[in-house]
Amino acid sequence: MMGGKRDKYTTSELRHDWLADRWVIVAPQRSERPEDFSHVVSVHNDSSHCPFCSGHEIETPQPVASYNDSSGDGGWQVRVVPNKFPAVNHGSSRIDSPQDVMGAGPHLESFSPPFSEVVANAPIDLYARRELTGGHEVIIESPLHLQSLSQLDRETVGLVFRAYRDRLAFWRQERKTTYAVVFKNVGHDAGASLAHTHSQLIATDILPTEVKRHIQRMEQFVSIEGTCLFCRMVADELEQEQRIVEKSENYVAFCPFASRLPSMVTILPKAHNSTFESLTCESLCELSWLTHSIIRRIEFCYPRAAYNFVIHTAPDNYQESRAFHWRMELFPRLTKVAGFEWGSDCYINPIAPEKAARSLRTVGLG
Amino acid sequence: MMGGKRDKYTTSELRHDWLADRWVIVAPQRSERPEDFSHVVSVHNDSSHCPFCSGHEIETPQPVASYNDSSGDGGWQVRVVPNKFPAVNHGSSRIDSPQDVMGAGPHLESFSPPFSEVVANAPIDLYARRELTGGHEVIIESPLHLQSLSQLDRETVGLVFRAYRDRLAFWRQERKTTYAVVFKNVGHDAGASLAHTHSQLIATDILPTEVKRHIQRMEQFVSIEGTCLFCRMVADELEQEQRIVEKSENYVAFCPFASRLPSMVTILPKAHNSTFESLTCESLCELSWLTHSIIRRIEFCYPRAAYNFVIHTAPDNYQESRAFHWRMELFPRLTKVAGFEWGSDCYINPIAPEKAARSLRTVGLG
Repeated sequence: MMGGKRDKYTTSELRHDWLADRWVIVAPQRSERPEDFSHVVSVHNDSSHCPFCSGHEIETPQPVASYNDSSGDGGWQVRVVPNKFPAVNHGSSRIDSPQDVMGAGPHLESFSPPFSEVVANAPIDLYARRELTGGHEVIIESPLHLQSLSQLDRETVGLVFRAYRDRLAFWRQERKTTYAVVFKNVGHDAGASLAHTHSQLIATDILPTEVKRHIQRMEQFVSIEGTCLFCRMVADELEQEQRIVEKSENYVAFCPFASRLPSMVTILPKAHNSTFESLTCESLCELSWLTHSIIRRIEFCYPRAAYNFVIHTAPDNYQESRAFHWRMELFPRLTKVAGFEWGSDCYINPIAPEKAARSLRTVGLG
Repeated sequence: MMGGKRDKYTTSELRHDWLADRWVIVAPQRSERPEDFSHVVSVHNDSSHCPFCSGHEIETPQPVASYNDSSGDGGWQVRVVPNKFPAVNHGSSRIDSPQDVMGAGPHLESFSPPFSEVVANAPIDLYARRELTGGHEVIIESPLHLQSLSQLDRETVGLVFRAYRDRLAFWRQERKTTYAVVFKNVGHDAGASLAHTHSQLIATDILPTEVKRHIQRMEQFVSIEGTCLFCRMVADELEQEQRIVEKSENYVAFCPFASRLPSMVTILPKAHNSTFESLTCESLCELSWLTHSIIRRIEFCYPRAAYNFVIHTAPDNYQESRAFHWRMELFPRLTKVAGFEWGSDCYINPIAPEKAARSLRTVGLG
């Protein structure tokens, strides 16, 4: 029989992620499984062939932005270049005339329109395809062959976040692309191919369906509750306390109630704001140092774990939205996505978010 | 500038997955990236401690089903046991009285209802949680310490698929659970924890939101096109030929047009049928041997690659549906899900499905 008598750490429960409208299975007993596999990732730590290291600038496309530190030695500290193997087409972000990028229109016409533009009840095309325009950039976070953002000093991590802001602003405001996202992959299991610490930006002329669906949910929340979903979440998490990892003056970092991955952390600005691009340098400094601290906590709890982070900023038409609250999601890659998750989009998380938050909160950062 | 002059294998294109309403980026040039990481998975191949091997039956819960081969030696060939570390609660599938399982109702009442039952415009609960009832079983596919379904002989792989059918029928028809899925994880990167060849079944009392959404799309397809989505796809793929991997009398295996993972293969029955549970032994034999062949093709093209497969059969209320066509999805785990995919649910697939199909189709299975 089921019910209240079971130890709360040996039974599963379902938690509802309201934004994604997705049930997540929190199943702590799953972490006790025996393991037949051991898994070793080796890093080619020979920086002599690293295209991102100082002295190898010729191996990357020309930079679209460069940031120096206050030492005044004239070298770059953070450098943004077009991705040499871009996931989206278009020459590069170095093309200065917006027409060169936006002028792809005529080519697009020979492809199918995005689904949302399809007239209801028109015949369905199961083979719709189109070109993809936008940009794909790499933010190189140090001239040195470092491998995690946690190894950067306070000034450099601030410059990295300034680069995120400036490049998002470029793609959103100057190039008017529909959607742009900054993300970071650290380690093989997180999808990185190069070890030198870097982040990426992808800007596209389509809004991914899942992002659109999330925005519809955020708007539904405002219409029912009269307040923004994430403003409510900030208030709730600060009141409940149990999922808080760290707070700063203007930000709060916590493990979301229905985390689909173990030890996931969300960082939210306490005050409502739709766009990351609108942040002041002061606010970017505060946020970047908080992010640095969260990554150190993750690395302390899960040594050598791969991790990702993603910055969600408002896409086209939502920059002034009362519903859209920009946010950042960080997650170590502790589990694999298996057949059940691929088949059902229902995730099994072996660490209760309250427990994950306690672990991350209580590490001694020294 | 963009457009038709580019080599079709060096530019990205977007393809629309109509069922999931998801755009996938097909970006062949991404496979040319340099790689700093090498990745070695070791398997503890010492079968003396393997709980799934013959002689270690005491280390698993009591079987709920067992199948012998035609040799008549009295030993089991395929064995189904409750998962010792279940993702869903309830004692085990050995409980014979349905009330013991279904009687969890009173406990459920103290939890929140699934979202779909929430009245529109009622206050939103961001912390909805409930218990999860159902079953989680392991199908042990051989008494020997084999590591892939491709190592089984024709008779045994047929017994494995009979076990899938029988256990799906048990959970769906006898226990009336809302949703049940059979899946297989082979290798560390596919989420397996034990190396001995096995599959799993999870049956739950909720329908995952993504599955519900897919069913709505299938129904929309029938209402607009007057035919089932997958019946149409069978006809289209057989006509277009370029994505076909293998055909048998009653089944077709192909790489879907908008595959989100590289070298994904879908197997469809040519004739409309909503439920895998309804298959005859003869049909199961044909399907299981086709699956065996597809896995051999995958292993030939990508030696030692981890892989998954998932069997999607109709959930509650859709068993006789004109819209729901059962299907099987197989996919080697060749790429990692990185920050961009987690942030946007938009996947970057570095192998065009037509090219993947050609590779898989043309391997010499000898």
